[in-house]
Amino acid sequence: MGNTASDILRVGIVGYGNLGKGVEKAIKQNPDMKLIAIFTRRSPASIGSKAKVVSMDDLESYQDDIDVMVLCGGSSTDLPEQVLAVSKYFNTVDSFDTHAKISTYFSKVDAHTKAHDTLSLISTGWDPGLFSMARLLGQSILPEGEDYTFWGKGLSQGHSDAVRRVQGVKNGVQYTIPIDSALERVRSGENPVLTTAEKHQRVCYVVPEEDADVQAIENVIKRMPNYFADYETTVHFISEEELKQEHATMPHGGIVFRSGTTGSGAKQRIEFSLALESNPEFTASVLVAYTRAVGKMAKQGQTGARTVLDIPLAYLSPKSDDELRRTLL
Amino acid sequence: MGNTASDILRVGIVGYGNLGKGVEKAIKQNPDMKLIAIFTRRSPASIGSKAKVVSMDDLESYQDDIDVMVLCGGSSTDLPEQVLAVSKYFNTVDSFDTHAKISTYFSKVDAHTKAHDTLSLISTGWDPGLFSMARLLGQSILPEGEDYTFWGKGLSQGHSDAVRRVQGVKNGVQYTIPIDSALERVRSGENPVLTTAEKHQRVCYVVPEEDADVQAIENVIKRMPNYFADYETTVHFISEEELKQEHATMPHGGIVFRSGTTGSGAKQRIEFSLALESNPEFTASVLVAYTRAVGKMAKQGQTGARTVLDIPLAYLSPKSDDELRRTLL
Repeated sequence: MGNTASDILRVGIVGYGNLGKGVEKAIKQNPDMKLIAIFTRRSPASIGSKAKVVSMDDLESYQDDIDVMVLCGGSSTDLPEQVLAVSKYFNTVDSFDTHAKISTYFSKVDAHTKAHDTLSLISTGWDPGLFSMARLLGQSILPEGEDYTFWGKGLSQGHSDAVRRVQGVKNGVQYTIPIDSALERVRSGENPVLTTAEKHQRVCYVVPEEDADVQAIENVIKRMPNYFADYETTVHFISEEELKQEHATMPHGGIVFRSGTTGSGAKQRIEFSLALESNPEFTASVLVAYTRAVGKMAKQGQTGARTVLDIPLAYLSPKSDDELRRTLL
Repeated sequence: MGNTASDILRVGIVGYGNLGKGVEKAIKQNPDMKLIAIFTRRSPASIGSKAKVVSMDDLESYQDDIDVMVLCGGSSTDLPEQVLAVSKYFNTVDSFDTHAKISTYFSKVDAHTKAHDTLSLISTGWDPGLFSMARLLGQSILPEGEDYTFWGKGLSQGHSDAVRRVQGVKNGVQYTIPIDSALERVRSGENPVLTTAEKHQRVCYVVPEEDADVQAIENVIKRMPNYFADYETTVHFISEEELKQEHATMPHGGIVFRSGTTGSGAKQRIEFSLALESNPEFTASVLVAYTRAVGKMAKQGQTGARTVLDIPLAYLSPKSDDELRRTLL
């Protein structure tokens, strides 16, 4: 339905942190798209990109030049404001990921974009995003069953921040790692009840300050409520050099399971997993594929808010519907 | 978009082989659906179901009683005829899986259903179907990368038939099994070039006729062109009793990989896998979830042919859009 030969899709990026940089790179991998400009609240001259960089104050003047804006701000403070400011003039794609607030965010964006005749896809990426899609698929196909989500092996930003705030810690990172025995129990089809702590272990690599009491650091980390106290936690002390050498990238991933039974009692399992060397670049690549979808839907005159659950997969592809049927079905 | 509180969806089944039986069971797992009748070309009295069984000759008279018909005939001869006969009066869902003919089948069904104001979803199930969706997702998100599909461990109907046709074979089954070292190479991110034969081994369990020359049987199987000659093939001879005890179910499954790189050269891998104790029951469960989607889309007045690539995932779920956003995103 969505696919016809079309012009190049003109894309803008709002915000230039790790995600915005990833979007810039991902657009280069898609020959049917073109980056028109990066918009920033910082001084445009301070942005290290060869693309055109424009102040957010000049946003409105690009209205006729950009088909879809990719919003790359953070969920806690940037996006709730950014999405309203930008979707007043542009179709948008964002990765709003504060799970508990998505429903409210959707309603606000839906009303706003309908009033301004624009289209906004919210909360895409991999979780929320691809993992949400895997959960929906699993629940719908196997109504009698259980969902399981495992995260990792991956660098957790929030937990790394918590480690770095501990007294005596100079630097550090934290990895969330699925526990193999829990994975095995899920794969066996026994449908166990598992808390997040029973599914994951937490491994910290900490650079202590000179003369710091490493035993005290380890104790504080392991006893930290919510973050570590309930988990199997390991703390390794390393040098600043080793941290830079071995822990500078942002890997992540995870697995969504649906384990259920069909009519005769047959056990059936659906598994969707990601193994990512760069979390921000992968998230950016998901956003860019959905940018194509938003471009097509906006061209049809669609307005309002959408999530990944509302969008036919064919819209993500640069191929025509007939080519998709011939090559993928 | 697709989800509002709604009446019970009234479903019919056409054809009552393994797939039709699976659909009957799957409908029972979905309280928002009701099986109205099973339609058959055989004598209705010969069908062992507690549901209402009706002759295909009386199909038309059920036009006002059924929202969606699930077509459970075989792809080679049944479906191409069945889909035209039934979609004249009803919205349909089918599992047409002759990959090379899907594009033509789609065009025919599309023209026919548009002329008759009905809606037909074709070629759903898991391959084509869920695996097609996984391939599309992978290609769209990681345009620089490779696809890999592994099938199994699973009972292959076509290969089992081929084994049973060998002289001196009384009975037998064949399993297609992914080769671990090939899986490992794909997971390593090296993006190897692999033929189907390099990805799969074939394992046969054969019951020989009394006094048959088992060495001759093994040779004929292993040298059979297309089916076995190119593959690592193992032949085990077993008793009829062991065959019935150990090989009476129809397990299957497989894995679709997309292994690619993003901007900085980071390796990223998407993996979608199925482990199924009953292939026909799982396929039936996929058809039934898509039956719900067809019911919703038909209610909106949509007509014509569709594939799984054209349908937003939200349509598969009995939950409202707001509930989906609150619980899955």
